[in-house]
Amino acid sequence: VKRILVTGGAGFIGSHIVDVLMLQGHQVTVMDNLFTGRRKNIEHWMGHPNFEFVRHDVVEEYMIEVDQIYHMACPASPPHYQYNPIKTIKTSSQGTLNMLGLAKRVKARLLFTSTSEVYGDPLEHPQKETYFGNVNTMGPRSCYDEGKRLGETLCYSFREELGVEVRIARIFNTFGPRMHPSDGRVVSNFIVQSLQNKKLTIYGDGHQTRSFQYVSDLVRGLILLMNSDFSDPVNLGNPDEYKIAEFAKKIVSFISPDKSPDQAIVHLPATKDDPQTRRPDNSRALSKLNWKPEVSLDEGLKLTVQYFKSEIGLAT
Amino acid sequence: VKRILVTGGAGFIGSHIVDVLMLQGHQVTVMDNLFTGRRKNIEHWMGHPNFEFVRHDVVEEYMIEVDQIYHMACPASPPHYQYNPIKTIKTSSQGTLNMLGLAKRVKARLLFTSTSEVYGDPLEHPQKETYFGNVNTMGPRSCYDEGKRLGETLCYSFREELGVEVRIARIFNTFGPRMHPSDGRVVSNFIVQSLQNKKLTIYGDGHQTRSFQYVSDLVRGLILLMNSDFSDPVNLGNPDEYKIAEFAKKIVSFISPDKSPDQAIVHLPATKDDPQTRRPDNSRALSKLNWKPEVSLDEGLKLTVQYFKSEIGLAT
Ligand SMILES: NC(=O)c1ccc[n+]([C@@H]2O[C@H](COP(=O)([O-])OP(=O)(O)OC[C@H]3O[C@@H](n4cnc5c(N)ncnc54)[C@H](O)[C@@H]3O)[C@@H](O)[C@H]2O)c1
Ligand SMILES: NC(=O)c1ccc[n+]([C@@H]2O[C@H](COP(=O)([O-])OP(=O)(O)OC[C@H]3O[C@@H](n4cnc5c(N)ncnc54)[C@H](O)[C@@H]3O)[C@@H](O)[C@H]2O)c1
Ligand SMILES: O=c1ccn([C@@H]2O[C@H](COP(=O)(O)OP(=O)(O)O)[C@@H](O)[C@H]2O)c(=O)[nH]1
Ligand SMILES: O=c1ccn([C@@H]2O[C@H](COP(=O)(O)OP(=O)(O)O)[C@@H](O)[C@H]2O)c(=O)[nH]1
Ligand SMILES: O=c1ccn([C@@H]2O[C@H](COP(=O)(O)OP(=O)(O)O)[C@@H](O)[C@H]2O)c(=O)[nH]1
Ligand SMILES: O=c1ccn([C@@H]2O[C@H](COP(=O)(O)OP(=O)(O)O)[C@@H](O)[C@H]2O)c(=O)[nH]1
Repeated sequence: VKRILVTGGAGFIGSHIVDVLMLQGHQVTVMDNLFTGRRKNIEHWMGHPNFEFVRHDVVEEYMIEVDQIYHMACPASPPHYQYNPIKTIKTSSQGTLNMLGLAKRVKARLLFTSTSEVYGDPLEHPQKETYFGNVNTMGPRSCYDEGKRLGETLCYSFREELGVEVRIARIFNTFGPRMHPSDGRVVSNFIVQSLQNKKLTIYGDGHQTRSFQYVSDLVRGLILLMNSDFSDPVNLGNPDEYKIAEFAKKIVSFISPDKSPDQAIVHLPATKDDPQTRRPDNSRALSKLNWKPEVSLDEGLKLTVQYFKSEIGLAT
Repeated sequence: VKRILVTGGAGFIGSHIVDVLMLQGHQVTVMDNLFTGRRKNIEHWMGHPNFEFVRHDVVEEYMIEVDQIYHMACPASPPHYQYNPIKTIKTSSQGTLNMLGLAKRVKARLLFTSTSEVYGDPLEHPQKETYFGNVNTMGPRSCYDEGKRLGETLCYSFREELGVEVRIARIFNTFGPRMHPSDGRVVSNFIVQSLQNKKLTIYGDGHQTRSFQYVSDLVRGLILLMNSDFSDPVNLGNPDEYKIAEFAKKIVSFISPDKSPDQAIVHLPATKDDPQTRRPDNSRALSKLNWKPEVSLDEGLKLTVQYFKSEIGLAT
């Protein structure tokens, strides 16, 4: 039994980690400022003797005695992290510094949730961990991308300079239950739009690609990584890659098979610096963690559509 | 007459800016923690009614009423910024945040001294400001490179989110009097080694290139940039490019023309992530600031060798 801190544990991914850790019998503390997370994601653990929720902002110093830290606190969806870019930068820089300072003091191991966004709009495809990326320092996505890049560098520096045990996951697009229905990401947008009989909004021509991983695969990978002895970055993602326009058609045929895509889709202006391709090279995760994704897009979508139906009051 | 803050003003470049600003009649405050800077670089202004020196660390909050901020506080030479990588990251992240917070509060304009290192080991040559770079987040240079990248992103975010007036200079390798004789950079190392009749230390095969700018050109560019209305990054550097091995020969023939390069040079192991090429594309500085470098390498070296001679007690 370990004492484990999950920052951002009331969010989408964090709350799924909490579930697994609680079922394994660990003592879990969630620290979250509830900016994008929701109390209901962890409600089922409230009152459990092994569980504690602390409303706290990771940008402020925080003291606790723990063995492991899953450091996930950071808004993840573009509309959320662009809501207050300066705050997003502080969360990734000062917040990660604080959690590394904590890890140093109590000799805990810290897992940092970095992102495929450190590769920016990649010129290498698929992306290996050795790729240095193609990131704009001066654009609407920079607060998130450069914040996460600096978070990795902080981890590296605490490891090299002070011997702190760090783990670094570069997470690729992930979906599943507990995504916020209005978080603005493509999976939630398309499913909710489709369920509400609205047109699916494609930004730009829809030729840009993403690869979608179901959340249970990611959570398994994160826990494997935390308990491995590998301290360099590891990609965690599903290589199953779609053009966004293809993906829109897939959602339409999944939810409203009677509609023609033309009726169901509308094109909006492209967003600035939108990565044009993204697909993980998973060979490092396979060789170091013996991990690979197992849930297919169709299986994942089934569970996710079910969740969104109940979320927006359409459960059958 | 303006009230001007120069952070890092006791350092090599900062002290030259101070000289020009003082001669222009401005009220100048130098804020510096004297980590790599030296009191003697600004000694000649001590006691002047328009001049003030404050020993302060930019990582800590700082209040002052000013019109312009030249934000230069940050160790610049690899041995210095690698001495305490975590401190280097704090200086660029928290330090730049503090100066932007100050700029916001007093409605000052801030010039951030970024670096050609944001291009990393560049795959585009020469480097334009539109190039996104090739930087490792996990290596010995990352604390400096990623710190400066985040500094740019902070400037961008304060500009976009709060309307703070920012200027961003990407400075390429600069040399001249007041470089610290033991700062470990190639110009100071080679000149001091040569003057002391020691072998010049080339890291690796010496095929890597750098382009060297004399400090007076840079200072003119920085002041032009500060007073321009252009708020995107601008390269400031001399495109005169040398292989480091060529540059070593040049220094030898300049200082000890009677020596054969073979006698005078020793190869040491290459350093990790050392950029293999570097040369600025200056077209933006030319079109936006009407700036181009004017001092040749030979002229600059003459003045610099003279300085190092007196610095190490060899003045004639
Ligand atoms: N979902 C993805 O596809 C994806 C991809 C790459 C990386 N990630 C990373 O995984 C982590 C979790 O993402 P998610 O999808 O669960 O997002 P989310 O927005 O659902 O969860 C983030 C959680 O962090 C909390 N938080 C934000 N700022 C905070 C602060 N300053 N102090 C304390 N708590 C704060 C939020 O309230 C929320 O509960 C993030 O770090 C994100 O960058 C996610
Ligand atoms: N010299 C170059 O070739 C070059 C190239 C690119 C960018 N730059 C940038 O220009 C600026 C000046 O560089 P330089 O060559 O004069 O270096 P320098 O080391 O001589 O000067 C830096 C100054 O900042 C001060 N300083 C460092 N950390 C500080 C802190 N936390 N608080 C307060 N003061 C602090 C030092 O004491 C020193 O006086 C730096 O920001 C550097 O990154 C220099
Ligand atoms: O239990 C702890 C220990 C440290 N920190 C924070 O972590 C950061 C870095 O810690 P470090 O020990 O390096 O502190 P510093 O040397 O900056 O005081 C600082 O902002 C601390 O406030 C924290 O939040 N909790
Ligand atoms: O309603 C939407 C939301 C997103 N996207 C596109 O889907 C991709 C993934 O966007 P998301 O915000 O989910 O994640 P990220 O860009 O961070 O990978 C991007 O190319 C977006 O431009 C879209 O076309 N319509
Ligand atoms: O005159 C000032 C004003 C602000 N700051 C610092 O600048 C940072 C960002 O300022 P902001 O006003 O955004 O502060 P916050 O919202 O973080 O309190 C904070 O760390 C402040 O302490 C400063 O050093 N001097
Ligand atoms: O004694 C030295 C110092 C530096 N260098 C090389 O000279 C170049 C410039 O190094 P410097 O530290 O001056 O600046 P930076 O690498 O930051 O441009 C790099 O390729 C170094 O490997 C060298 O060969 N011998």
